[in-house]
Amino acid sequence: MMWPAAVDRLLQWALEEDVGRGDITSEAVIPPHLRAAAVVRVKEAARVCGLPMAEAVFRMMDREVECQRLVQEGADVDGPSAVMRVEGPARAVLSAERTALNVLARLTGVATLTRRAVAELAGTRARLLDTRKTTPGWRWLEKYAVRVGGGLNHRYGLDHLVLIKDNHIAICGGVAQAVERARAAVGPAYRIEVEVETLAQLDEALAAGADMILLDNMSLPAMAAAVERTAGRVPLEASGGVTLERLRAIAETGVDYISMGALTHSAVSVDVGLDVEEVAP
Amino acid sequence: MMWPAAVDRLLQWALEEDVGRGDITSEAVIPPHLRAAAVVRVKEAARVCGLPMAEAVFRMMDREVECQRLVQEGADVDGPSAVMRVEGPARAVLSAERTALNVLARLTGVATLTRRAVAELAGTRARLLDTRKTTPGWRWLEKYAVRVGGGLNHRYGLDHLVLIKDNHIAICGGVAQAVERARAAVGPAYRIEVEVETLAQLDEALAAGADMILLDNMSLPAMAAAVERTAGRVPLEASGGVTLERLRAIAETGVDYISMGALTHSAVSVDVGLDVEEVAP
Amino acid sequence: MMWPAAVDRLLQWALEEDVGRGDITSEAVIPPHLRAAAVVRVKEAARVCGLPMAEAVFRMMDREVECQRLVQEGADVDGPSAVMRVEGPARAVLSAERTALNVLARLTGVATLTRRAVAELAGTRARLLDTRKTTPGWRWLEKYAVRVGGGLNHRYGLDHLVLIKDNHIAICGGVAQAVERARAAVGPAYRIEVEVETLAQLDEALAAGADMILLDNMSLPAMAAAVERTAGRVPLEASGGVTLERLRAIAETGVDYISMGALTHSAVSVDVGLDVEEVAP
Amino acid sequence: MMWPAAVDRLLQWALEEDVGRGDITSEAVIPPHLRAAAVVRVKEAARVCGLPMAEAVFRMMDREVECQRLVQEGADVDGPSAVMRVEGPARAVLSAERTALNVLARLTGVATLTRRAVAELAGTRARLLDTRKTTPGWRWLEKYAVRVGGGLNHRYGLDHLVLIKDNHIAICGGVAQAVERARAAVGPAYRIEVEVETLAQLDEALAAGADMILLDNMSLPAMAAAVERTAGRVPLEASGGVTLERLRAIAETGVDYISMGALTHSAVSVDVGLDVEEVAP
Amino acid sequence: MMWPAAVDRLLQWALEEDVGRGDITSEAVIPPHLRAAAVVRVKEAARVCGLPMAEAVFRMMDREVECQRLVQEGADVDGPSAVMRVEGPARAVLSAERTALNVLARLTGVATLTRRAVAELAGTRARLLDTRKTTPGWRWLEKYAVRVGGGLNHRYGLDHLVLIKDNHIAICGGVAQAVERARAAVGPAYRIEVEVETLAQLDEALAAGADMILLDNMSLPAMAAAVERTAGRVPLEASGGVTLERLRAIAETGVDYISMGALTHSAVSVDVGLDVEEVAP
Amino acid sequence: MMWPAAVDRLLQWALEEDVGRGDITSEAVIPPHLRAAAVVRVKEAARVCGLPMAEAVFRMMDREVECQRLVQEGADVDGPSAVMRVEGPARAVLSAERTALNVLARLTGVATLTRRAVAELAGTRARLLDTRKTTPGWRWLEKYAVRVGGGLNHRYGLDHLVLIKDNHIAICGGVAQAVERARAAVGPAYRIEVEVETLAQLDEALAAGADMILLDNMSLPAMAAAVERTAGRVPLEASGGVTLERLRAIAETGVDYISMGALTHSAVSVDVGLDVEEVAP
Repeated sequence: MMWPAAVDRLLQWALEEDVGRGDITSEAVIPPHLRAAAVVRVKEAARVCGLPMAEAVFRMMDREVECQRLVQEGADVDGPSAVMRVEGPARAVLSAERTALNVLARLTGVATLTRRAVAELAGTRARLLDTRKTTPGWRWLEKYAVRVGGGLNHRYGLDHLVLIKDNHIAICGGVAQAVERARAAVGPAYRIEVEVETLAQLDEALAAGADMILLDNMSLPAMAAAVERTAGRVPLEASGGVTLERLRAIAETGVDYISMGALTHSAVSVDVGLDVEEVAP
Repeated sequence: MMWPAAVDRLLQWALEEDVGRGDITSEAVIPPHLRAAAVVRVKEAARVCGLPMAEAVFRMMDREVECQRLVQEGADVDGPSAVMRVEGPARAVLSAERTALNVLARLTGVATLTRRAVAELAGTRARLLDTRKTTPGWRWLEKYAVRVGGGLNHRYGLDHLVLIKDNHIAICGGVAQAVERARAAVGPAYRIEVEVETLAQLDEALAAGADMILLDNMSLPAMAAAVERTAGRVPLEASGGVTLERLRAIAETGVDYISMGALTHSAVSVDVGLDVEEVAP
Repeated sequence: MMWPAAVDRLLQWALEEDVGRGDITSEAVIPPHLRAAAVVRVKEAARVCGLPMAEAVFRMMDREVECQRLVQEGADVDGPSAVMRVEGPARAVLSAERTALNVLARLTGVATLTRRAVAELAGTRARLLDTRKTTPGWRWLEKYAVRVGGGLNHRYGLDHLVLIKDNHIAICGGVAQAVERARAAVGPAYRIEVEVETLAQLDEALAAGADMILLDNMSLPAMAAAVERTAGRVPLEASGGVTLERLRAIAETGVDYISMGALTHSAVSVDVGLDVEEVAP
Repeated sequence: MMWPAAVDRLLQWALEEDVGRGDITSEAVIPPHLRAAAVVRVKEAARVCGLPMAEAVFRMMDREVECQRLVQEGADVDGPSAVMRVEGPARAVLSAERTALNVLARLTGVATLTRRAVAELAGTRARLLDTRKTTPGWRWLEKYAVRVGGGLNHRYGLDHLVLIKDNHIAICGGVAQAVERARAAVGPAYRIEVEVETLAQLDEALAAGADMILLDNMSLPAMAAAVERTAGRVPLEASGGVTLERLRAIAETGVDYISMGALTHSAVSVDVGLDVEEVAP
Repeated sequence: MMWPAAVDRLLQWALEEDVGRGDITSEAVIPPHLRAAAVVRVKEAARVCGLPMAEAVFRMMDREVECQRLVQEGADVDGPSAVMRVEGPARAVLSAERTALNVLARLTGVATLTRRAVAELAGTRARLLDTRKTTPGWRWLEKYAVRVGGGLNHRYGLDHLVLIKDNHIAICGGVAQAVERARAAVGPAYRIEVEVETLAQLDEALAAGADMILLDNMSLPAMAAAVERTAGRVPLEASGGVTLERLRAIAETGVDYISMGALTHSAVSVDVGLDVEEVAP
Repeated sequence: MMWPAAVDRLLQWALEEDVGRGDITSEAVIPPHLRAAAVVRVKEAARVCGLPMAEAVFRMMDREVECQRLVQEGADVDGPSAVMRVEGPARAVLSAERTALNVLARLTGVATLTRRAVAELAGTRARLLDTRKTTPGWRWLEKYAVRVGGGLNHRYGLDHLVLIKDNHIAICGGVAQAVERARAAVGPAYRIEVEVETLAQLDEALAAGADMILLDNMSLPAMAAAVERTAGRVPLEASGGVTLERLRAIAETGVDYISMGALTHSAVSVDVGLDVEEVAP
């Protein structure tokens, strides 16, 4: 599995911030050639996510650590479960433990929350999207966890989807002018989405030739009306204040996509741990 | 205010992951010389944390952006409040918005949760500590937010407090041997803490000359007994499964410190936003 | 003007590779406090591009160097012309000269070639696109020069437009299957383009719901037939072996876009130079 | 073969700029375990250069990719020729393709142009030198390609040959003073070259004890006179406006070296491609 | 053996500063496939230190170089001794030679000086500490060499022991206030040491609850008095102007620790060399 | 004054290794807005070197620190002397103190030792050279200090002077062959030096056309004979076991250059300190 080099730099930096000038406890009390075998466990029901990254952390610490997955990345476990076996120099295993677990715990947290949200949409046409409300530095990792949880990614960043918001419209003097300026500036590899708050704005955006429209903080009836009025000409995305509780009702308005910042900004870590099962010289 | 260069690198990288090859929307629809004045708002009761970092993000985007704090770092707000004014080139303000808000939202989330936990301890002798269960890459920032929230920091990483756990003890063949090895290896700048699960282990750790003792997942009566038996000779730290609900009862056992992983691994972002109030050429 | 931090790193590295451990000639023969005023000249007809980057190079060398543009970025000059005035410590001006000129010469080369290509399309509906055949490390800079030359950018890289080519189709067992897989994997922020070589494939791609179709190395009559058959349902891009000489004929088939690798892989540097006009203590 | 770490950083960055957050097409349509065998072809007569770097690019993408050279680095091919076989995970092969080809195409372009220039000098005593007019960031790579093409490298950068030009002379108040200052400042590991435009200046430079003299933009008769007057005491280098057409005539004046900026600033990429020949699970 | 990634970066940078754009001598005169076997020798009595780092340098140059230690890290040699065998591509061995030897020579110098200092303390209760007077960039390496020489490390840097000096006391208005401020700011993972110059200050520091006290530049009798007055309540550290000659007398005052800046700021390199013993294709 | 960006990176890293996660003492006991004025003193006779770098360190810590030199870089002081005044935020001044002093102490040590060595050569024709036996990471800084001390720099690294040693000669089968290979491989910007141990080898090197010859570990009479035999045709460099005591005798043999590794590998730090003279809010 491949990921951007910047993700490796983040993981490397995470190890450095924890290990600092050295794990003085392990160096003081563990003989250098001792080896350990350990098991990583997820301690609650979850969609497991982050095994390749946890493995990368252990191996950044020491190339001699070997990891064996006991469940597949993206597997669902419904209670305490062993998910990975780790074997290698005892010092390295213990020194990398906390960083590896922290990565696994957070990504599993995001994937598990996403899975719950996706389940709410079962049977509707709506697809779940994430947002840019991710932990700074973790954009790629958290968007990956959303995919593992069954969601789709909205735009990765500011550079590959034009998203025209109220401020942009105000500056340009209208939806039509804003879309026109965008169309002239970007090539055909780039979609143009417009954010609207009212049905009147929706009409403007449709007329201006938006490729996709974001319904911002609309009421359920307004969303339903927007769906009807758009009649499938462009995809509609519902956004703003989306909670697990409201998801299904929003989906039932007929929108194509629902984007939910909470997937990343309000996910909490799942409980994970590492148990040393065996040490040997 | 100063922070490690690595924090700047994380913030810089956070900007890069969001902006990528450029904010194509702003570049397409906002004239280059337009200026904007905006206000950052925290939308719920919170202890505000992260203003200097949010400011750093805006200024990394463009040195011409000026930020003015409307409340002090660490201030308590009890509802929607303007916390910072941002003024500068409109493109830069809008391009940096999401990253700056994401930083502020998360740090304020950690500080706010810490404040709540600290409030639980009012009137007891116990002090609140954080743990190493932080978001990888965010160790310094989250420990800073804990301080802003009124907590104390436990060790930053593996390199400046010897913490002897069950695995270390098993490998060394006993608490006494483990402490002895550690004492021989590290100089006087380093404290030695021992993790114990039973009162018998507590006695061993005291006899071995530990500088501090961590009571791991003990029952309340066991903690109270440990406090009595230790009689102030070394500081005692309670740890394991600490929740807001249990904090006060733990504190009342008489322990010196309580460490709580949830401060960082289960904090969620506080709702924050930016409103453009004025644009002008 | 803002650009990705990686562009600054490239320019910084370019200075380092030229200056190395120091400009021994300037250090040996130029007194440290001597100041110089110099003029940068483009020596042939060109569309000037790269002034902000040349300025950045001079100022990376020494913050005391001041640059004043004598023509605007993107200006057309029709013969030898002064384009920038540079004033500052004489050592810094001379040490940065070669790197700054090399940047300016190459970007002006790309912009000038693009301008010529765009001129060929005057009066047709076709718009000119670049490709990913850029100098490694220079993607952002060369795509910027294409925009300054009047062209549009095709996708920046592999991460924000799905482009399904013959190998992908073969692996998936057909156009329909490939498009379907892509549609399931990526969210609505991503367009899907399909590369076709025949009209039969074009029909398949249209049926499969491609958002855009690339006509690869087709004859002029085949392109004209493709335009007719597509009837405006999706944009068509002509690609493959596009030269200045063939541009107009291709455009006249009615395609929407023409992508031309030569804009970047066959651009040559424009002749530029720096003349010291005055030195003073 | 070894090269500076900075070259690896450039190649790594080149991959990052193309792949960005991931090759979404390959990830969507190619199964993760599929393997591919492909052949890299140079499509026109050329001196092949850059095979080790292209290989490095493929292997930076994925260590499991294996490359086998079908011709030696520096081989001459006189028409379309397979030059390298690439085998490995299909996603990695296709994701690295464009970057690897871009590197190979440009370096082969420089080596091929250099070979042509060297051929012009056959039978004369003159040797061909490059200049510092290289693509910023590519200094090492392009100077390497010049060597592969049969040329010699002039100084790499500003730090290891003193080259005294007109501005330096003006500042010092004469050739003699400039050479004297340089001689006092640098140790014996450093040569001192002086640039002259007239025979009078040549005499001055000879008298001042220059180690080497650059004849800048001189006419052919002036160069011949310079050769005669110098009588082999120091090497003479001809420079300025050197084209393939003028090379031989310049060489016949008897100069020792001819430096030619066009080798790098006006080289264009040679046409190269990659064909997948086989895919298998 | 593990060390911080920043140490690898220093070693990598050390290689880059020496090799630069390439070892032109080796590339010109050594055939690329020639292999060499060589022996690294320490040429005088020494405690050998730095073998793992020297090995890392050779292998950073080329992964095909193999190193075999002929003595253990930390071994004492009492005259010219072979300490490591190096085998691999001849170019790589010779290109890395100087950097590897420079690392080994300096670290062995520090360890050897430390060993001499430690020997002076034999039979006393005093333990030898280093200081922060290390070569900038070399903190970890030099502190490691001190450990190999038999010394203990004082604090690594400013971030994990509070050391209150005269300036701090002056600013706070007294020892008691300074200690109190520190105690309120840092958690139990951090010790607090106070620097005193007189016995009166010692009393203050003891009363204020310092965890450790530094006796700064005190006379021998004053130190002895300090030991008596402290009566083992906290560890005492003697510091300031410590030389090999004075070490024993200081130790005999009964202090617990003696810190000696000369271990690192006045260590000189031990003489080391590399002899090629065999070359073969 | 300009230096390579890598020197800034070393200084930055030096600060990071000392400050780590923060200067906990200063943060705990010094109010954030307190300002301090301090004086840096060299405490013994010395040639002062490193003031610009010490200043850079203070300003890397905080741009608000201002430094004023009280003596010029390169000045000779003959006893304890104030050399720089530092003014700025008290925390920043104290946090950067140790790193700044460590830089200044080492560079002044090298410059002072060099000055002594240069003084030994007064009245002879010999010039003093340094070697590559520098502290890894410090090549540029130490070579700079040698220049400040009055010495000349030998080659900076492996990339800009061909130095043919015994191993190279053995591999090539003779001095003539080695020089010939080198001449064919490198252009005229590169000198070729040959290392010889006997007069017979000297003759060979002269015959082969070496540009410079290194007399390795020769006796004084042999050196004198070499000087006579060479008769000024090429510069001669004496090297190997050069000490302050032997310098003059070597110079009197008539060699042109003497290179001395001890200038850098055996320099010790000069005693320097910082005194806070005033604090104010």
